[in-house]
Amino acid sequence: MSERKTALVLSAHAADFVWRCGGAIALHAEMGYDVTIACMSFGERGESARLWKEGKTLDEVKAIRRGEAEAAAEALGAARLECFDLGDYPLELTRDDKSRLVDLIRQVQPSFMLSHSKYDPYNTDHMYMTQVALECRMIAQAWGHNPGEKVLGAPQLYLFEPHQTEQMGWKPDTFLDITPVWDKKRAAMECMNGQVHLWDYYTRVAQQRANHFKRNSGGMSGGRDCKFAEGFESVFPRTVDSL
Amino acid sequence: MSERKTALVLSAHAADFVWRCGGAIALHAEMGYDVTIACMSFGERGESARLWKEGKTLDEVKAIRRGEAEAAAEALGAARLECFDLGDYPLELTRDDKSRLVDLIRQVQPSFMLSHSKYDPYNTDHMYMTQVALECRMIAQAWGHNPGEKVLGAPQLYLFEPHQTEQMGWKPDTFLDITPVWDKKRAAMECMNGQVHLWDYYTRVAQQRANHFKRNSGGMSGGRDCKFAEGFESVFPRTVDSL
Amino acid sequence: MSERKTALVLSAHAADFVWRCGGAIALHAEMGYDVTIACMSFGERGESARLWKEGKTLDEVKAIRRGEAEAAAEALGAARLECFDLGDYPLELTRDDKSRLVDLIRQVQPSFMLSHSKYDPYNTDHMYMTQVALECRMIAQAWGHNPGEKVLGAPQLYLFEPHQTEQMGWKPDTFLDITPVWDKKRAAMECMNGQVHLWDYYTRVAQQRANHFKRNSGGMSGGRDCKFAEGFESVFPRTVDSL
Amino acid sequence: MSERKTALVLSAHAADFVWRCGGAIALHAEMGYDVTIACMSFGERGESARLWKEGKTLDEVKAIRRGEAEAAAEALGAARLECFDLGDYPLELTRDDKSRLVDLIRQVQPSFMLSHSKYDPYNTDHMYMTQVALECRMIAQAWGHNPGEKVLGAPQLYLFEPHQTEQMGWKPDTFLDITPVWDKKRAAMECMNGQVHLWDYYTRVAQQRANHFKRNSGGMSGGRDCKFAEGFESVFPRTVDSL
Amino acid sequence: MSERKTALVLSAHAADFVWRCGGAIALHAEMGYDVTIACMSFGERGESARLWKEGKTLDEVKAIRRGEAEAAAEALGAARLECFDLGDYPLELTRDDKSRLVDLIRQVQPSFMLSHSKYDPYNTDHMYMTQVALECRMIAQAWGHNPGEKVLGAPQLYLFEPHQTEQMGWKPDTFLDITPVWDKKRAAMECMNGQVHLWDYYTRVAQQRANHFKRNSGGMSGGRDCKFAEGFESVFPRTVDSL
Amino acid sequence: MSERKTALVLSAHAADFVWRCGGAIALHAEMGYDVTIACMSFGERGESARLWKEGKTLDEVKAIRRGEAEAAAEALGAARLECFDLGDYPLELTRDDKSRLVDLIRQVQPSFMLSHSKYDPYNTDHMYMTQVALECRMIAQAWGHNPGEKVLGAPQLYLFEPHQTEQMGWKPDTFLDITPVWDKKRAAMECMNGQVHLWDYYTRVAQQRANHFKRNSGGMSGGRDCKFAEGFESVFPRTVDSL
Repeated sequence: MSERKTALVLSAHAADFVWRCGGAIALHAEMGYDVTIACMSFGERGESARLWKEGKTLDEVKAIRRGEAEAAAEALGAARLECFDLGDYPLELTRDDKSRLVDLIRQVQPSFMLSHSKYDPYNTDHMYMTQVALECRMIAQAWGHNPGEKVLGAPQLYLFEPHQTEQMGWKPDTFLDITPVWDKKRAAMECMNGQVHLWDYYTRVAQQRANHFKRNSGGMSGGRDCKFAEGFESVFPRTVDSL
Repeated sequence: MSERKTALVLSAHAADFVWRCGGAIALHAEMGYDVTIACMSFGERGESARLWKEGKTLDEVKAIRRGEAEAAAEALGAARLECFDLGDYPLELTRDDKSRLVDLIRQVQPSFMLSHSKYDPYNTDHMYMTQVALECRMIAQAWGHNPGEKVLGAPQLYLFEPHQTEQMGWKPDTFLDITPVWDKKRAAMECMNGQVHLWDYYTRVAQQRANHFKRNSGGMSGGRDCKFAEGFESVFPRTVDSL
Repeated sequence: MSERKTALVLSAHAADFVWRCGGAIALHAEMGYDVTIACMSFGERGESARLWKEGKTLDEVKAIRRGEAEAAAEALGAARLECFDLGDYPLELTRDDKSRLVDLIRQVQPSFMLSHSKYDPYNTDHMYMTQVALECRMIAQAWGHNPGEKVLGAPQLYLFEPHQTEQMGWKPDTFLDITPVWDKKRAAMECMNGQVHLWDYYTRVAQQRANHFKRNSGGMSGGRDCKFAEGFESVFPRTVDSL
Repeated sequence: MSERKTALVLSAHAADFVWRCGGAIALHAEMGYDVTIACMSFGERGESARLWKEGKTLDEVKAIRRGEAEAAAEALGAARLECFDLGDYPLELTRDDKSRLVDLIRQVQPSFMLSHSKYDPYNTDHMYMTQVALECRMIAQAWGHNPGEKVLGAPQLYLFEPHQTEQMGWKPDTFLDITPVWDKKRAAMECMNGQVHLWDYYTRVAQQRANHFKRNSGGMSGGRDCKFAEGFESVFPRTVDSL
Repeated sequence: MSERKTALVLSAHAADFVWRCGGAIALHAEMGYDVTIACMSFGERGESARLWKEGKTLDEVKAIRRGEAEAAAEALGAARLECFDLGDYPLELTRDDKSRLVDLIRQVQPSFMLSHSKYDPYNTDHMYMTQVALECRMIAQAWGHNPGEKVLGAPQLYLFEPHQTEQMGWKPDTFLDITPVWDKKRAAMECMNGQVHLWDYYTRVAQQRANHFKRNSGGMSGGRDCKFAEGFESVFPRTVDSL
Repeated sequence: MSERKTALVLSAHAADFVWRCGGAIALHAEMGYDVTIACMSFGERGESARLWKEGKTLDEVKAIRRGEAEAAAEALGAARLECFDLGDYPLELTRDDKSRLVDLIRQVQPSFMLSHSKYDPYNTDHMYMTQVALECRMIAQAWGHNPGEKVLGAPQLYLFEPHQTEQMGWKPDTFLDITPVWDKKRAAMECMNGQVHLWDYYTRVAQQRANHFKRNSGGMSGGRDCKFAEGFESVFPRTVDSL
């Protein structure tokens, strides 16, 4: 087992991890974390409109999306990209699929996990993913599930930023400065050729979150400089030795 | 101005700071913080039933409560106890009272602040205190309020634990291990002779929160040991360099 | 001091107590309660459109509304109607006004209290009344407020039905069968000559709540019969000896 | 069919009914209720860490947990313990399992039901159980489900106390005095040998809830004495003849 | 494909569309919309108590309910009634059933959709229907679902009025004047012979909502006249060219 | 009295109306509305950091901010800018100040009003402004307030976009396309010389909201083009003749 710190990203579709937490991945990779990205699907049906308009087949779409996801994961410095290839729109996990995910969680033994917002009326795959994340986190903690394996501790589950945050009831409680790795996140975004319109959109998101970072680090008197940031909502309380 | 780190507690009544964040005060004092406690009132009318039953006068009640608060603050190692003596049930701050509080906030320049829950149908003084805390924090940040003074940055405002948490809509997101200073908190509680029934009550609160600390630090697989803890709800997001 | 059970209604405007809890008043009066109704204002400015259209003066409007309120209170069998005459739109209580209300609460020593919903964007007097109710309830409980007087216990505060319930975030948890006293409530409503359009409106409210009463007493299999009911939201938990 | 009053507890895992509503069971049993406890699983995988650490097999764990649950049910004076043995972590009910539960509900015809909180990010079995409770309650009310059987009325569904209440959004609206049966609850808890660390934890919960009982029965002026209590959240409104 | 505007109603049980949005259906039909009503079930088990009491068989109940639904749909001027006949109490859709619903959504290409409230502890079929509506709306938007078909745009999903609105957390943001088509809605309601007690109930609902319509169109100064109205909650934001 | 349609903006500080609803002002002005902007203060103390750092006096700061606000209002084509000059940090309105605001509301007789979010822990002036807006809207509707004047109807109150939307619990339900007047909004923003860092920030806000506009007008299949938009939350329900 690795001595290195680890983190685990659960992404419903192949590109979610890029837009929503690419900075966190790159930053922790630079800090020496082994970051594992688990994509449940390639977003082949629901998030590949351009490829379908070009007349690609399902297999072609999946292959292209897989390639983009691999390139993005590499650009971010992720240790591992695990494609579950379960289909999307809708995403559905059987009990076996969930067991496979539990196995992965136990293998990784993440210090923290990342997934989608709790609610998303536009995209039910997203909220389903989070529900599965909670269920599989619980199973991975059970001493009686595959007895003898190392059980999971109690890693934080951070919910990364959804599209149209206010409609999802998503409220960030943590802003992460990703300025040092911004180039990597932008490079990873540029791997996603089917969603070019989102490159600038999520660049602006990072700029706005940097403003919020500064507001909360120093207020109107001027906080620490920050050019790009990402926001996260924590599911569980933190345990600390000082405030 | 002190080079030491600082914190500021805003307490509606003289004893609130003891039950609700005595551990945080003692712990940060041990870590070298100058902790200032501002009590808006002595809780003389509303939280001194035993003294009134004994036939004490208002001045006597206030003097006794002041003495207890001073003893408790000393037991906790607080740097300063500031009694505003504004009366309670109801607590009301005039614009001048608020200016005095703003002056104190600017003097202290706290790294973080502590106050009551946002809502409390049993005790409207508590929620009023938090409303005032937000207002005065804002004024202290204004460059045009007493121009030339050092303005406040953007310190976190932690909301400490109210009585009957669920009725107040208070949700802790931070558990602080206060085991190393438990004896000081217990000693401070024992300074409050008019509320003996709360000594054991808040000892049990600290034990339950220690259980929650362990659950969230390590889950069912067994977290780090912790015998006493306090819980806090953050008003503002955190800004971090790693998750 | 009376040996009889007591209840206290806090009504922002003269007619609120009729529409919103007239049934509860009449029912408990029949059960032997002394019910005191405290009207902060006559609703003279904001809820007397017809009288103003007729060209009445302020004094005339107030006199007419007072007369209607007295007639309604009598029709309901209330023990006492206390008109504070503080003005409306907006309603504002000075510290002295609040002290007067605290005095009344202590005199009455109510088994339960009734007031408005917590939120009302259409009518800020209503939500202000509830805020004052909580504040004065707290003061009435304080041993140090007018020491020597009998302090208040911990009566439930029921929030009666506002207009457009969903906009107020009001959720009833208690349905009271007022069928036995319906005639009295209707008679009281018919005392309010300036708001004739509300007679049928609140008759329908009572019929709908009776349907809800039946749904929750017996479900689709058919609950106990009920023709008229009122709904209430409780602010505080109940303490019971059986579920 | 029994002439006695009845109640039904729906417990995801074998021990939940002990910690969370053991007092309610014992109290109503003493009052002459036939209380039926339905355990969906033994909590064999997720809540038996000690037994797994001792190297027990699945069958052994289940047998031991069953034995403990039976002993606890007997200590509480429950009329019946029904073990569905459906597995845990995750708990899943097929349509047949749900039909079996509906049959039980109809057999019991409970005056009230008890189950878990609506939300629980730590333990998805718990919130799943409540979702199933609502679904099966609805089916049991349907005249067209197994026509000819006696349909269910509209029993209250009380949600018992989860671990870390604030994280679950659980808000108690009812406190039940369990002082008269405290010895039975403690005895039942002591049947659960695998979770010794919870005996004192839930003893303290009962003491804290007793404090809340007193606060709400009599306020700061001193309510009725109560040494141990349990809290519950009601899903449905109550129907009453007096407030 | 039709050049006419279209709307789509998703109704868990055969009668829901009548009580909850019969006015909207009739009004838009008169305006030239082709309104399609999709009933997932006939409400045969759970909402046909009278027929079961009369000793009807399942097939008879379904046939009668189908007949009533067809008559009601005709009375309202709906273009099409699609009965999925999937059973109720509980309603469950397989992946194939959902595909069928997606096909229908794509065929209709609705300008707006109508379905149940998000939450309903009394009737889990209702909230399940809304969850399915969101899922199928998402699938219908996916370019990779049955490539070549016309994908769905972004129609509003309006949630129609549930029974006991406050218990469902349903908050109407849109009131529709249905006065011009009231006779049609009443006629449609009178097609539902098994639920006669609801005819007057939902007539009163329409009258109360008319009062709310007036309050919000003109306030206390007297809004536009309206005798019958329906209320709706929007899931998605509106896009407008003026406020 | 004007025959033209009217709108009224209530802005706590001089610049709020520019960032938060400048597009709505310019757009409706172009459509022929007389838009009145009421600024309660110049934001002289709290939102003019640069000027204070330059050593300006209070009078100078106010004069400069007034000039900027006037220039911005003109750039937007507003019919009138009313500066109440009440001070900021904190903003407080006396009863006379509120009467003045009520007078203005009645003069304008707005078709709709615009103000701040309901909650803002960073800036209590903002939420206070909205509370006052609701109170004064209510008073303006009262027939008995300055009898003889034309009373207010029931205009919508739109809440414009705050900074850090998720922290304020602000959820937009209406997106307004401001592309046609974007140049005017940008020009108005560039009048605010003390807050240059916000020019690009709010340009990006408008671009992100345009993306949301498209998502909700046409979804992933591509909505109507829109380059700049503003978002609003409605306080009151709409009354409509079609969905």
